[in-house]
Amino acid sequence: MIEARKQRDDALALAVQPQGTPVTEGTDEFALINRLAALLDPPTHGIGIGDDAATWSPTPGTVTVATTDMLVEGIHFRLDWTTPEDLGWKAMAVNLSDIAAMGARPRHALVSIALKPDQAGIVIEIYKGIAAHARASGTFVVGGDTVRTDGPLTINVTLLGEADPALILRRDGARPGDVLAITGTAGGSAAGLALLSGEPTDSDPDRSRRLLAMHHRPSPRLHAGPALASLGARCGIDISDGIASETGHLARSSNVAIVIDVDAVPFHPDAVAMFVLERARTLGLNGGEDYELLVTLPLSLVDRARDAIASETTLTVIGRVVQDQHGGLVTATSGGLPFTLGAGGYVAF
Amino acid sequence: MIEARKQRDDALALAVQPQGTPVTEGTDEFALINRLAALLDPPTHGIGIGDDAATWSPTPGTVTVATTDMLVEGIHFRLDWTTPEDLGWKAMAVNLSDIAAMGARPRHALVSIALKPDQAGIVIEIYKGIAAHARASGTFVVGGDTVRTDGPLTINVTLLGEADPALILRRDGARPGDVLAITGTAGGSAAGLALLSGEPTDSDPDRSRRLLAMHHRPSPRLHAGPALASLGARCGIDISDGIASETGHLARSSNVAIVIDVDAVPFHPDAVAMFVLERARTLGLNGGEDYELLVTLPLSLVDRARDAIASETTLTVIGRVVQDQHGGLVTATSGGLPFTLGAGGYVAF
Repeated sequence: MIEARKQRDDALALAVQPQGTPVTEGTDEFALINRLAALLDPPTHGIGIGDDAATWSPTPGTVTVATTDMLVEGIHFRLDWTTPEDLGWKAMAVNLSDIAAMGARPRHALVSIALKPDQAGIVIEIYKGIAAHARASGTFVVGGDTVRTDGPLTINVTLLGEADPALILRRDGARPGDVLAITGTAGGSAAGLALLSGEPTDSDPDRSRRLLAMHHRPSPRLHAGPALASLGARCGIDISDGIASETGHLARSSNVAIVIDVDAVPFHPDAVAMFVLERARTLGLNGGEDYELLVTLPLSLVDRARDAIASETTLTVIGRVVQDQHGGLVTATSGGLPFTLGAGGYVAF
Repeated sequence: MIEARKQRDDALALAVQPQGTPVTEGTDEFALINRLAALLDPPTHGIGIGDDAATWSPTPGTVTVATTDMLVEGIHFRLDWTTPEDLGWKAMAVNLSDIAAMGARPRHALVSIALKPDQAGIVIEIYKGIAAHARASGTFVVGGDTVRTDGPLTINVTLLGEADPALILRRDGARPGDVLAITGTAGGSAAGLALLSGEPTDSDPDRSRRLLAMHHRPSPRLHAGPALASLGARCGIDISDGIASETGHLARSSNVAIVIDVDAVPFHPDAVAMFVLERARTLGLNGGEDYELLVTLPLSLVDRARDAIASETTLTVIGRVVQDQHGGLVTATSGGLPFTLGAGGYVAF
């Protein structure tokens, strides 16, 4: 699209636009885009792949919620550690989790992939994972761009969702008196990555399989986000970067002090069983990629909130918002004593 | 976000999320994201940079129009041929043109950039160009992702716009009896690229400067797209891939035969003056990157359409839709004789 026109012409074997049409029929790029499009469910309304842009009708009364994440081979994933299909699933998961963390519902996605000319087979597998997660989450992939690169495989997903404007989970909504609660468990994905990294452990095949699945096929809390928002939670974030760091974001954005009770955190039982408790704690507090939600809400709402999301996951109170604090502050306790959250987490601001 | 967690941690100097907040204050990524955000106008409503996702309110009665394009160093641009600021401008232009070609108005953008750790200075310049084009087009950049790569610099822009659902310019709206018309001129950008490539020419500094500007700083037809749609045009596309190829898209999608009168095409006067007419024709018909609009509309609307877009650009009739034709067909004439559109364009389907 930009310069190096002659280089671009050489690159046409992959320089296709899922939302456009290829330059000539019968060429490789035409075949590839048709194969990719065939993997996707067509949108039930509006214009999907095949024009200059996609269109859809916003649901009246909702706001649009938009997020985008770029994943680079060698930085965010390794093709010798993940299957391309799992990679496609995860590229969607990263973005779906951000939508859920706003209390919103996903609706449409646009997917851009840069790949080497010999990676057409890989991109089809990636799209299978994208399509599977799109279907599982009720999201329509309506456009994108597939281009050539001489460098690492790079995927960018933009996810568009909708929410009731009065029910957005913001980072700045934490208030003194709220409790801090987390969906699901912490540390499972980081434990799976530790296994991939060859970290020594008391290995158990079933546990390993479960932890690797936590890492490769995360399930964003698509129901819990909107459900917690509709019950009255006003502050939420996903813990893709670990509990300590994400609590820090909430504290700083909300200008409050938050105390985490480390003993209350539901660390993943397989992570605790395979690694010592201290390591499992570090994986959960500072590891990340769990795609669980961290919310603050009044204590009086916790029981109803737990019931409302029970079909999808658990909700556990792990701390409380103790007071207003300009710039934010996060501290932690264990056994009644101060607990250092460790490198990578917010200890103070 | 995905695997290679340890590698990711090493990469944190650039692993920032414009719509998120960095892991720790006072680090390089925090400084960088603050510098990037400071270049952008904050949205006048909704949530911009700084939460899990951005939000905005759709205009009642409109449909959302979405497009995304990925640009890769060495494939779509060369940093020794373009300034980073022009690159940012162009990354926006590519997407803004797609929005205009749907008859829509741009509203919000999300920008993802993968770059090497030593390219922080370049990304700031890129953002200056993005911000300038966002401001010029009334678009708010509300989110994105900035990550590290060991490979080529890669930019992905997702552009969200709005349109009246009854006034969408589709590719499949051409009808026998319509004329084919083009905004502005053709071949200017391709002529600028030919100059960059060192193509021999009768050089003239002023002409060269104008042609290079056509290539580096294209102005998408943001007003003409919605204006032509509101006047009754129902079929449109942007000519980022050249007239021949794009007319082929319209013909195939609409299942019609289109005849182009090559003598009527307004080739860029500087391209004609610097190169022989035959070369200028090839640049305009098969070159591309002009970001003009190609529309079909009833002949009776042409005068009003010309008046409606006169403040932005010209409108020139260059052909007509002659009949229904399954699968589409494009032919061309010059001086009353058949004209071969050449490689890269659609001659037949």
